[in-house]
Amino acid sequence: MNDAIKIIPSGGVTSPKGFCAGAVAAGIKKKVAGALDLAILSAGKPVPAAGVFTRNVFRAAPVILSEKRLERGRIAAVIVNSGCANASTGEAGYRDAEVMAMMAARRFGLEPEDVIVASTGVIGQRLPMEKIEDGIKRLNCTPEGGKDFARAIMTTDTAPKEIAVSADNFILGGCAKGSGMIHPDMATMLAFITTDAAVDAIFLKQVLKNASDASFNMLTIDGDTSTNDMALVMASGAAGGDIITASSAKAELFQQALTTVCIELAKMIAKDGEGATRRIEVIVKGATCLEDARKVARTIAGSSLVKTAIHGTDPNWGRIMAAAGRSGAYIEPEKATLEMGGACLFRHGVPQPFNRVEISNNLCRDEVFIILDLGLGNSQATAWGCDLTKEYVTINADYTT
Amino acid sequence: MNDAIKIIPSGGVTSPKGFCAGAVAAGIKKKVAGALDLAILSAGKPVPAAGVFTRNVFRAAPVILSEKRLERGRIAAVIVNSGCANASTGEAGYRDAEVMAMMAARRFGLEPEDVIVASTGVIGQRLPMEKIEDGIKRLNCTPEGGKDFARAIMTTDTAPKEIAVSADNFILGGCAKGSGMIHPDMATMLAFITTDAAVDAIFLKQVLKNASDASFNMLTIDGDTSTNDMALVMASGAAGGDIITASSAKAELFQQALTTVCIELAKMIAKDGEGATRRIEVIVKGATCLEDARKVARTIAGSSLVKTAIHGTDPNWGRIMAAAGRSGAYIEPEKATLEMGGACLFRHGVPQPFNRVEISNNLCRDEVFIILDLGLGNSQATAWGCDLTKEYVTINADYTT
Repeated sequence: MNDAIKIIPSGGVTSPKGFCAGAVAAGIKKKVAGALDLAILSAGKPVPAAGVFTRNVFRAAPVILSEKRLERGRIAAVIVNSGCANASTGEAGYRDAEVMAMMAARRFGLEPEDVIVASTGVIGQRLPMEKIEDGIKRLNCTPEGGKDFARAIMTTDTAPKEIAVSADNFILGGCAKGSGMIHPDMATMLAFITTDAAVDAIFLKQVLKNASDASFNMLTIDGDTSTNDMALVMASGAAGGDIITASSAKAELFQQALTTVCIELAKMIAKDGEGATRRIEVIVKGATCLEDARKVARTIAGSSLVKTAIHGTDPNWGRIMAAAGRSGAYIEPEKATLEMGGACLFRHGVPQPFNRVEISNNLCRDEVFIILDLGLGNSQATAWGCDLTKEYVTINADYTT
Repeated sequence: MNDAIKIIPSGGVTSPKGFCAGAVAAGIKKKVAGALDLAILSAGKPVPAAGVFTRNVFRAAPVILSEKRLERGRIAAVIVNSGCANASTGEAGYRDAEVMAMMAARRFGLEPEDVIVASTGVIGQRLPMEKIEDGIKRLNCTPEGGKDFARAIMTTDTAPKEIAVSADNFILGGCAKGSGMIHPDMATMLAFITTDAAVDAIFLKQVLKNASDASFNMLTIDGDTSTNDMALVMASGAAGGDIITASSAKAELFQQALTTVCIELAKMIAKDGEGATRRIEVIVKGATCLEDARKVARTIAGSSLVKTAIHGTDPNWGRIMAAAGRSGAYIEPEKATLEMGGACLFRHGVPQPFNRVEISNNLCRDEVFIILDLGLGNSQATAWGCDLTKEYVTINADYTT
């Protein structure tokens, strides 16, 4: 991490100036009585904003609505619910999302077109509009509301995921939800990022795309891509200063700060993967191009056999090499070198002797690092995932019923 | 299935005339004392043969050797071991495979170049050559040896997988192993198929490719592609008759018979997926092209979220649609119709009311059918998989140690 970027202890989505948030228990989450499940994050007025969205063909109503409204590069607020994804609900579902945005706009004195919507939860059920209407009436929005907001967006998450960093004169804050249905090729969760920097809307969109490609799109929990997911960034400009554009002196620092926030959120999501006991970080070096490095890293992090081996603290490097080998990337087996659990297991195509007990002990830790050097070029990428456990099966074998 | 193709009860790889087989316990499988783990399947002389092989970049020594020797379109025998994959073992491993073929050739009076090798088991360990040498000395080859052969190739399989069919004047027999590391894009297991039909070698290769694409390559257990897998077909010609070529009257019947054998083996593998309690068959209709139909079917069958939902007898159709939506195939959500557990859950983009208890009960059966009509064209494909269970995690969290 760049030394100019500092983590703000206990920071979150309302750490940057110019944002307020709040949440209520609207009764949408059926399983947990009294759980926060409806939330607002607002800049109080239209500000530069950008989003990246799921690439799934089946896109939920709020995704369609929000992507459209973000085309202008400005929004004032996002209203979010958990417990119901409003996905595969057809035109009626789209109207529900519109009404939800309108109700939030009314409550907080905004224009409906300046409000976007995010929903997460079960697919194929209509939103309980009475509960949402009642909830929005009770919703308040304060500069201290970030923590409630972060809790309200959770579904199977075991903990809220929040971060804030400062750099130069500005602050970036973020929170995210997601622990299942997480896989590359989209911001495959909900992530909300705020900054008080003054940022040009077009530049903001590019910066978010770059940051997402290096973070959320390198995250895999179970190989599935949700119909609903999005990452949003809003820039209030409250920190003052010149507007940051692609040619600004601060452009690179802002990119690094946003990428840092996205990577830290991605790592929190990986750690909280459904049923996970440990986080897996796969670093692929020496690829001929970035795309290949990313392919290999993601394929390894997504392999069920690698994930179960790590769960069993088993240095089964053969599964790692097999996953790399099916990734589609250009690889020469005799040039590849693999490190895991603090030892070199495979060097230039040849298995190395290792102390199984020692490595097994190293694999017991909360974080396991797999470092594969393809020995071909200079490109590098990192992917994040988690182990595959019996608990994952339990969580997912009984979700709607 | 074509009415002209009849299943032969208790048939297997030595049902066709002109083949013998045998197996011994050579002590390569460490976990199970006395288990058969070294086996021969022989035509006694070079006969037309073809193979398809793993597309993994990391290809095991026996795969490299066997693919090379099959280039001539003729082999006499295959020597197989389980318990050690001889993969990622470098040049020394390749020499081991050569020596193993040579020892088998000597034992059965064949030319070494006419013998190919298949190995399955743990990756990255050298073959125990003394055990293999000793085992080959004790190996016998008889026309009744098919059942022993089928047992000897098993690893985590819970049952041998065998079939034979008759059609016209010829018989096709086959056996397979595989219950983990099974995924599209290769004959991702070991499959050995024999026929007493007289078949042209070039035609045989094309027929095997077509059959594999519709069977083994539509099979997914855990998304991983092994370094070792192959499907082999040998044609003894012992049934007599004209040589079948692409332009023969019998060409289509032979293709159908081979495809039937491959599909039945694929279904047996799906049913025996590691830890599986039920088989999943995904039928995708109405796609604009075959490639799209296959993509969608495979993506659904391979989704961890679909697999866990089926395990929990949960009619969570949203996960099925989400998997279809990320498959990369052309889909128009408002034209798609989904049936599962005997009910229509989603019609032309709209969720349908259903009786959850009734469908849940239907999903309790040994076989679950998911039928997705994309409503776009005339292409159709079927994929096979299994549910994802806690037992899968148990099996794979502790495989080498």
